[in-house]
Amino acid sequence: MNKAKVYIKENKERFISELLDLLRIPSISAQSERKPDMQRCAEFLAAALVKAGADRADVLPTEGNPVVYAEKTVDPGAKTVLVYGHYDVMPVDPRDEWRTEPFEPVIRDGRIWGRGADDDKGQLWMHAKAFEAMCATDSLPCNVKFMLEGEEEIGSPSLYGFCEQNKELLKANIILVSDTSMISMQTPSITCGLRGLAYMEVEVTGPDKDLHSGLFGGAVANPANVLARLVAGLVDENGRVTIPGFYDDVRELTPAEREAFNKAPFSLEDYKKSLKIGDVEGEAGYTTLERTGVRPSLDVNGIWGGYTGEGTKTVIPSKASAKISMRLVPNQDYRKISELFEKHFRAIAPESVKVVVKSLHGGMPYVAPTDMPAYKAAEKAVEATFGKKPLPFYSGGSIPIISGFESILGIKSLLIGFGLAEDAIHSPNESYGLEQFDKGVETIPLFYKYFAESE
Amino acid sequence: MNKAKVYIKENKERFISELLDLLRIPSISAQSERKPDMQRCAEFLAAALVKAGADRADVLPTEGNPVVYAEKTVDPGAKTVLVYGHYDVMPVDPRDEWRTEPFEPVIRDGRIWGRGADDDKGQLWMHAKAFEAMCATDSLPCNVKFMLEGEEEIGSPSLYGFCEQNKELLKANIILVSDTSMISMQTPSITCGLRGLAYMEVEVTGPDKDLHSGLFGGAVANPANVLARLVAGLVDENGRVTIPGFYDDVRELTPAEREAFNKAPFSLEDYKKSLKIGDVEGEAGYTTLERTGVRPSLDVNGIWGGYTGEGTKTVIPSKASAKISMRLVPNQDYRKISELFEKHFRAIAPESVKVVVKSLHGGMPYVAPTDMPAYKAAEKAVEATFGKKPLPFYSGGSIPIISGFESILGIKSLLIGFGLAEDAIHSPNESYGLEQFDKGVETIPLFYKYFAESE
Repeated sequence: MNKAKVYIKENKERFISELLDLLRIPSISAQSERKPDMQRCAEFLAAALVKAGADRADVLPTEGNPVVYAEKTVDPGAKTVLVYGHYDVMPVDPRDEWRTEPFEPVIRDGRIWGRGADDDKGQLWMHAKAFEAMCATDSLPCNVKFMLEGEEEIGSPSLYGFCEQNKELLKANIILVSDTSMISMQTPSITCGLRGLAYMEVEVTGPDKDLHSGLFGGAVANPANVLARLVAGLVDENGRVTIPGFYDDVRELTPAEREAFNKAPFSLEDYKKSLKIGDVEGEAGYTTLERTGVRPSLDVNGIWGGYTGEGTKTVIPSKASAKISMRLVPNQDYRKISELFEKHFRAIAPESVKVVVKSLHGGMPYVAPTDMPAYKAAEKAVEATFGKKPLPFYSGGSIPIISGFESILGIKSLLIGFGLAEDAIHSPNESYGLEQFDKGVETIPLFYKYFAESE
Repeated sequence: MNKAKVYIKENKERFISELLDLLRIPSISAQSERKPDMQRCAEFLAAALVKAGADRADVLPTEGNPVVYAEKTVDPGAKTVLVYGHYDVMPVDPRDEWRTEPFEPVIRDGRIWGRGADDDKGQLWMHAKAFEAMCATDSLPCNVKFMLEGEEEIGSPSLYGFCEQNKELLKANIILVSDTSMISMQTPSITCGLRGLAYMEVEVTGPDKDLHSGLFGGAVANPANVLARLVAGLVDENGRVTIPGFYDDVRELTPAEREAFNKAPFSLEDYKKSLKIGDVEGEAGYTTLERTGVRPSLDVNGIWGGYTGEGTKTVIPSKASAKISMRLVPNQDYRKISELFEKHFRAIAPESVKVVVKSLHGGMPYVAPTDMPAYKAAEKAVEATFGKKPLPFYSGGSIPIISGFESILGIKSLLIGFGLAEDAIHSPNESYGLEQFDKGVETIPLFYKYFAESE
């Protein structure tokens, strides 16, 4: 491994400068006008992977954004690692809260600042560069495949079909993913659980046009008031979701599991201080770690209706809307939950309004067993670079496609992410620490080594 | 009166074409970038009033938008009518629901379509043109003053001070206002009650930045969820506002008053059909007419927070906001109600969020006695042109400055509006019927005549 490590050290600055080029491409999958940027980003990655040592790299079209597929075969008898990542990024609003331009990345205070710096361009780039280092120093012990998609942030709508159609091409022993976070640099962790997601949009319509609130106020149901009422009613005073059947399939932890789960270092005071909040809020009877790790939740991701400009407008809006998503835990099925949501929302809407409920996307929760060889190899690799055995961690986030990989390809995923909470992914001023990047690039070749050596 | 009537008939088309010019000026008072248009609009009106026959017309500066003041003295011993109107208009969003450009007025189906066509440019123009007709035909029986402001839609912030400083200038026997609606062309009415208004804005802040809803969802109070909960809680299941003290000063109607009040022709089925709603909603125990005429109400005029763009974003927004206004009835005081609102909203907000509550503007309710000479004169004038005695009407709308006139200038207002519900004021596709305009221009000289003749 020494040769790869030396190579990484000597080329570190170039790695980062290349990453900045990648970050300059505004590949926001949620915005259809970014189509040309998606294509450009995919081509950038394919070219980079060939340069890094891949036998081939293709930009494969899908119904949505293209998938970058690359591979290198070192020995048909060796284990195969399929690296998954995504080159699309989140939208940047609220735009005016960015201290520097989201797509003009800068390095400041030992961190790379820009949209995608962590999620997921920074993290996938560690894999591209670790791969380059192993190729350049003839120390790649596994066959490698890359599958980088451009639709993760919108629920990977095309990748499910892509996997269905390319089962043979994608055959591998493990899927290696860096799209998650660790507890901290002092407490490294490997994610072995991900929540699922059911993302809905609701629209409440009252009168067929905006009305003067003086002439009609008090007599006509105001869709914005009704929406507030309906949304408020989705969670009760104990922080529990009120949708009938919502908790039916939730796997409750045993007391022993709960105890183990709450052993991760966590300070409620630090947590509140870091978010500048006066108090936390959630499902009664569960700790903050449990609330984000193993309990489902319901959040309004966006709400809008009526006049939102400067000054006043005395209007009863014709419509009001909300984007509402639910995080799911084993063994909830997002399809069932989406249906329950829709049925419930329709049922609680009064006669005075019409509602439209749409399911925007969804994904299943995922659990990785901590006794599989890839987990053990990752544990050893992280311990070698961080000097500490990583904790298994149940993340509140969702990567819907991960459970899709298991059901379609029959391959487990190993979630070895090097993100930190302070990276502010999905928020303004996303960043990624240079030290996180360096540790990642160092750890990945060790994973390959230990995984190749495993039974 | 015949000469004036003939003059009006002969000049009708020019009146309308001049009005279209006035409607082309996008004088939206809520948007500060429209300042130059406000000035231009005021100058347009001053010039028009001099041309119509005023002895003088000035564009008088205020701290906000200018006031157009004009006057004509026919006889120092005659009665004086002060015509009040406003040349500012509402914003135009939702912009894409307009079938034609809001500031490129067109005539279609016997109606003028454009922002301000009714409220209040179309209605004030009837007064300018009736004035012109009386001047041109030497039949003006009263002294006339015009006071046209540019801030009515944002609560007339400068006009209160303007009145304080110009009490002598504004002396008059009655203030004549056309900024209200009639029940229908078949059931003419004169507005003798206006609701007051307390307009608030609230901002709920949770974490200091947007958070990933997967990593934090379920453990951190989501400001959009909390806002929905707080807003929903402001009105109970009986449609009553829950703010402690809110109803303390509300004057309850006597059973006899309620009976008289509900005599106005009203079909709930037609009302629902015209708004395309399945049901009405409001305070239990009151009719729709009472709910909008003599009962207070609370409406969300705008709500926003989080991601509202295309697709999905899994975010817990840092902030969520709402504009909330309350319509008030005699004897509620908007200052007291604004204070009660703020106190209550702060009290119900949980520890997990911070709230900011701002009062954006307010106005007192108003009642005009139906036995004053101006009301009697208006009643006769409307009966002459519509062939039917008008009903006294309690409107749900607010013109906050009207009660200000009474308290500052000591002058009552006569609200002789020719609007109709179908004019869609404050909404997309505002319009004003040519017949409404014609009836208005015809009725106004009769009002002057009967008012001049009254005791």
